[in-house]
Amino acid sequence: MAKPTAPSGRENSPEKAFGRVLRSVRESRNLSQEELAARAGYHRTYVGQLERGEKSPSLRTIFNLSSTLEVNPSVLVRRVERLV
Amino acid sequence: MAKPTAPSGRENSPEKAFGRVLRSVRESRNLSQEELAARAGYHRTYVGQLERGEKSPSLRTIFNLSSTLEVNPSVLVRRVERLV
Repeated sequence: MAKPTAPSGRENSPEKAFGRVLRSVRESRNLSQEELAARAGYHRTYVGQLERGEKSPSLRTIFNLSSTLEVNPSVLVRRVERLV
Repeated sequence: MAKPTAPSGRENSPEKAFGRVLRSVRESRNLSQEELAARAGYHRTYVGQLERGEKSPSLRTIFNLSSTLEVNPSVLVRRVERLV
């Protein structure tokens, strides 16, 4: 069956997908939102907004978070692509 | 010889690298800044700022530009990684 269209839109937006990938990678590193935020230099609430897909991270933020999580930015983005 | 450190910083910033990659892909598609901007829904000056590394594109912008240029966002980001 084909992937259904998101009913209220944006369920497969890059932001939503990035949020899911970010949470998944963060949890795989056994980091709390607080710990990731502190290490990457962001406020915890911003990490929460990103994980909920409420903000579109800048390229700079993608690189900062990737560095903190020890994953290549392109690997993160490839995982996002697969969800969009 | 090792790659020298950028003297005044940021020469290998993600933004500068993205700008170089964006210009390279755009030119490979034989598109002017104006044409790319019009197709992707941005102002020409914004594309110019991106290509000069003056702005950090959002994830949304990276996806929009990639779609217009018919390249995977992760491929674009991988090329950026290599330059940073």
